Amino acid sequence: MKKFMDKDFLLTTETAKELFHGYAEDCPIIDYHNHLPPKDIFERRRYENLTQIWLEADHYKWRCMRVCGVDEYYITGTADAYEKFLRFAEILPRLIGSPVYHWAHLELQRYFGIYEPLTADNAKVIWEKTCAMLAGEGFDAVSLLDKAKVKALCTTDDPADSLEWHLKLKDDGSIPFITLPSFRPDRFLHIDQPAFIPACKALGEKYGEISDWDSLKNALRASLDFFQSAGCRVTDHGFTRFRYARGNCEAVVKKALRGETLSEEDIALYQGALLRFLGEEYAQRGLVMQLHLGPVRNTSPVLMKAFGPDAGGDSIGATTDPFLLAAYLGDLEGEDKLPKTVLYNLHPGDSAMLSTMAVDFCANGAKVQYGAAWWLLDHIRGISEQLDQLMETGLISGSVGMLTDSRSFTSFARHEYFRRILCNKLGEKVENGEYPCDLSFLGELVKDICWRNAKNYFGI
Amino acid sequence: MKKFMDKDFLLTTETAKELFHGYAEDCPIIDYHNHLPPKDIFERRRYENLTQIWLEADHYKWRCMRVCGVDEYYITGTADAYEKFLRFAEILPRLIGSPVYHWAHLELQRYFGIYEPLTADNAKVIWEKTCAMLAGEGFDAVSLLDKAKVKALCTTDDPADSLEWHLKLKDDGSIPFITLPSFRPDRFLHIDQPAFIPACKALGEKYGEISDWDSLKNALRASLDFFQSAGCRVTDHGFTRFRYARGNCEAVVKKALRGETLSEEDIALYQGALLRFLGEEYAQRGLVMQLHLGPVRNTSPVLMKAFGPDAGGDSIGATTDPFLLAAYLGDLEGEDKLPKTVLYNLHPGDSAMLSTMAVDFCANGAKVQYGAAWWLLDHIRGISEQLDQLMETGLISGSVGMLTDSRSFTSFARHEYFRRILCNKLGEKVENGEYPCDLSFLGELVKDICWRNAKNYFGI
Amino acid sequence: MKKFMDKDFLLTTETAKELFHGYAEDCPIIDYHNHLPPKDIFERRRYENLTQIWLEADHYKWRCMRVCGVDEYYITGTADAYEKFLRFAEILPRLIGSPVYHWAHLELQRYFGIYEPLTADNAKVIWEKTCAMLAGEGFDAVSLLDKAKVKALCTTDDPADSLEWHLKLKDDGSIPFITLPSFRPDRFLHIDQPAFIPACKALGEKYGEISDWDSLKNALRASLDFFQSAGCRVTDHGFTRFRYARGNCEAVVKKALRGETLSEEDIALYQGALLRFLGEEYAQRGLVMQLHLGPVRNTSPVLMKAFGPDAGGDSIGATTDPFLLAAYLGDLEGEDKLPKTVLYNLHPGDSAMLSTMAVDFCANGAKVQYGAAWWLLDHIRGISEQLDQLMETGLISGSVGMLTDSRSFTSFARHEYFRRILCNKLGEKVENGEYPCDLSFLGELVKDICWRNAKNYFGI
Repeated sequence: MKKFMDKDFLLTTETAKELFHGYAEDCPIIDYHNHLPPKDIFERRRYENLTQIWLEADHYKWRCMRVCGVDEYYITGTADAYEKFLRFAEILPRLIGSPVYHWAHLELQRYFGIYEPLTADNAKVIWEKTCAMLAGEGFDAVSLLDKAKVKALCTTDDPADSLEWHLKLKDDGSIPFITLPSFRPDRFLHIDQPAFIPACKALGEKYGEISDWDSLKNALRASLDFFQSAGCRVTDHGFTRFRYARGNCEAVVKKALRGETLSEEDIALYQGALLRFLGEEYAQRGLVMQLHLGPVRNTSPVLMKAFGPDAGGDSIGATTDPFLLAAYLGDLEGEDKLPKTVLYNLHPGDSAMLSTMAVDFCANGAKVQYGAAWWLLDHIRGISEQLDQLMETGLISGSVGMLTDSRSFTSFARHEYFRRILCNKLGEKVENGEYPCDLSFLGELVKDICWRNAKNYFGI
Repeated sequence: MKKFMDKDFLLTTETAKELFHGYAEDCPIIDYHNHLPPKDIFERRRYENLTQIWLEADHYKWRCMRVCGVDEYYITGTADAYEKFLRFAEILPRLIGSPVYHWAHLELQRYFGIYEPLTADNAKVIWEKTCAMLAGEGFDAVSLLDKAKVKALCTTDDPADSLEWHLKLKDDGSIPFITLPSFRPDRFLHIDQPAFIPACKALGEKYGEISDWDSLKNALRASLDFFQSAGCRVTDHGFTRFRYARGNCEAVVKKALRGETLSEEDIALYQGALLRFLGEEYAQRGLVMQLHLGPVRNTSPVLMKAFGPDAGGDSIGATTDPFLLAAYLGDLEGEDKLPKTVLYNLHPGDSAMLSTMAVDFCANGAKVQYGAAWWLLDHIRGISEQLDQLMETGLISGSVGMLTDSRSFTSFARHEYFRRILCNKLGEKVENGEYPCDLSFLGELVKDICWRNAKNYFGI
Repeated sequence: MKKFMDKDFLLTTETAKELFHGYAEDCPIIDYHNHLPPKDIFERRRYENLTQIWLEADHYKWRCMRVCGVDEYYITGTADAYEKFLRFAEILPRLIGSPVYHWAHLELQRYFGIYEPLTADNAKVIWEKTCAMLAGEGFDAVSLLDKAKVKALCTTDDPADSLEWHLKLKDDGSIPFITLPSFRPDRFLHIDQPAFIPACKALGEKYGEISDWDSLKNALRASLDFFQSAGCRVTDHGFTRFRYARGNCEAVVKKALRGETLSEEDIALYQGALLRFLGEEYAQRGLVMQLHLGPVRNTSPVLMKAFGPDAGGDSIGATTDPFLLAAYLGDLEGEDKLPKTVLYNLHPGDSAMLSTMAVDFCANGAKVQYGAAWWLLDHIRGISEQLDQLMETGLISGSVGMLTDSRSFTSFARHEYFRRILCNKLGEKVENGEYPCDLSFLGELVKDICWRNAKNYFGI
């Protein structure tokens, strides 16, 4: 029996251990997609307790508490910070097999040197120990990231954002990593949602009034100019359903700005036009385009009413239409306007489709990538599936590896989680006689996947 | 090499063996969904031979015989009972890797003490031995269930059913387990099928003529009252396609009762209204709602013509639309009318969607469950997938565990099959260092999953 | 640690080794579906170098080179043969986990006796050694196939094909295997594509002008007569989307022949009628029908423009509609016109659906098969998934086993790849106590799957 989460956690062969400890473990982190608030970084935010770090904004943990029947008062409610922590500690042992279980313990180990499993029994002791440590040096936002060997971060930002904190961070010479904004025009993409008109107003105030398709494009171009001036290297787009149609969307934009209801055809026409416009802009500017495909959002009216979006009422939705996705990528490629693109799926049924389709569009260089296991797939089997797909039908050695996609400053343990699974998978291939035992070659390949490929691909 | 199906069958680690033999093996069974005929229980039906037990109604075995090329005469035809058994014994060794192979041998072991693999060679000997045993004591329907430690059964019953045998069973103090009816209004749900009008007639005769939407609801309410008086705790609904729409269905009901053809929109409108009505009723009454999603039924016209439905001409169909399912559950939750609900998929591509969506609707208590591997997924990988999904994205420790969904009185070996896979999976996590080795905690968790969670969730 | 790709490659248990070396390894090959050019066989084509064998037509390898960023000049361009080989050797070590990595090394081992991993370092030596061997005896097309123990081949041929080379091969008594044409009417099936009218013209010239549905059917019947006279036993059909509708398609055929645009409904009506017509013809003639379901084709306009179809710009598409597929098979079965049928999926999400649906249509004999892992699924996990599905829900012992689906004369190593995975899987069941250790029985079962089932099923 292996010891509980010791130094060889998830490493089942000697080759895996050598690859992880010899090559992966100490690699820097290029976290090219997350939701960290740049303000917290600039202000070197400090934390009083684990509840602030773990339970303030982490809908993964909220979901675990809910499914265990914990009252919302202790989750998102007004309960005392320790009470919330205690409730979480109480349910944690019930989460056998959950990545949340592993992440929590990796974070206790790496940031606090605590190696025992957290339960209701030791919750008080661990609370006090971590509170004391957090009150000391080395636990502010910047120190936590530095401890994780973070070298670059790409946050997620609205096109109308002032990037105030990014600009300040750019001028702050004392921070040992770079923090770049990412352009995420979701509010402009989802023309059928209530946020569209306010988003246009906000963007219009900064970059000229938006009254039609042309003025919308102009404002987005101006925003892209500004984002690039602030260091932006990557963009992001979230889809519940990927819609795509060809044609003129001018009438649709006017309808939407008048607040009229749009048909499915209208939405597809607009989203097709916007995605083509954006793709071309990204290609010309050398920005990477990320497409996140497949959730269903805000399913629970109770959660939506109480907390708004991103409260944990999101789950895995439908598979993506391959004909529409291929049409989009093909339209860009056919005009030599295909940017570097990373395709992420939330529905496990899309993994083979995305992994193989990415390769279709590599005729002029390895432009399109099949991206890391994401969100509700970010567990051992999910990560393993992405790596297997890359090995079988894509190219694992060219992968840009892992990202956190997180709002938490200690979530960087997920890179370690990924690296262990990666090294174990490669080790299995070697030990099973499926690949020669060339550790130095594989070690370099591991380093590529852990950070060097990302550095090169995103140009950071 | 492990011995063939010995006491440690499917248990590959010491932890797994301790969990199974120390905790799971002797747990009672709460079989909250099956198709047993209550008449056979009340009458303590006896069996002359294995053909009656195995081949009279078990479409799993019929399918195995057909795919081996056995003539229908020996499957559903008029061949002699021993001849049928012999044909099954002949093809059984060809079923390597099939759950039917394991179930048959588990049943021979547990009920008859026969530990050798059944083949054509020993078919005669095993036939004679089992016939002799069946002629003795301890092999009537009640004894078979008692031997399996069954404490509660929920059968599957039409709303128009008289529940004659359930009422008799309720009054029979000599049976060591309880047998409860389940409310399964499929004939009322599938308004586009020929059974709808006869079903309405039958229900109308008991609870008042059904001439429109209101009288249909009244009759269903009256039936629910009656089912509850007979002890009903759980309801069930089968879908090939899950349709859902919002709106008034009064006109559709009238069209259907006049025998007119309905459009897809009509059906969705009606099913949406009926499901909302039923969901609210269940919530008010504290009944659990089961949704079984994803088969394609009666695909073979040859089987349909010869035997009617449930003859084995059913297979895995399409994935379920997550947007429609979320809309339904959300509509109920938004009005605080969401009953406890168990979601079952037949298409493996729905497992991640259902497992994650169940959690979305747990804001007011752990109401929605992702249900056990079902029907054509009820094999080692299928069970394993359900457990993995629960661990990764749901809550395995809160699961209501296994059910038989069977027409067979010896099929309760499937609970053992499930428990072995469960214990093995938990054991793997422990032995792989992914979870602390706390056997007494895990043992109680195993007991919860094996029966206590079901007892509590269904209120039996 | 196992040695790199030694004689026990992929065989992890003693039972697996005994099954492979004792039974599978020396079985003949019935390759009932491939794309070999019969001309090359008849002319006993010789090869100057590995570039001709490996890189001339193999889009699997092209994709690997592209995803590694290799310039098209070295892939499909005019680069020197050795340069192309060197580029491939350079990227090969990066393909850890890819079936292309294993196939290439199996081919080096079996055909050239080269057991070291190919890299940039030894590329020159291996090039020279293989060039020298290819210049000697035993490396022409017929010898390569004979060395692989090929006993029968079914190529893929258009209904308008002259079958010139097949007829010559039929008369050539010196070839140690038989080569049969397969009827593949894809150009006639895809009525909405530009190839339809030229295909009708070409077929019309041989078998009578095609001006309507009746003359089209007559020409196809005449072609089938001719194909059968040349030994055809099997047919094939490729679908990106499986469409199906019932009704009269006469008007649609006329529209198409006039070059008019067809609606989705038109296409479904026509394809439904054509598939029913063909299915009935195949049933009457005793031909096997293959349905290949699920790619998305020619997604990359760059590749399409530069090289036309089959250049590697194809990937995994959408899942298949089970209701339409069941309707088709049911319509044939209901009229007792269902031919033997093999169902292949490219989308992994279809495997459970196809495997279970195949069994639905076995009431009159084991007619419908779930076919081998195909194309982009032809890797260890893909093959393993097909075998698991067959074991769990179909019948592995009745399977017709593997095929190459390849244009390459050395690709027959894929049969070995499959056989190793098969033997390993059966071995695991035995060693895990899930099946009795009856090696002679399992050995015969392995031989059935390796070639005897195919011989019987296809009547070769």
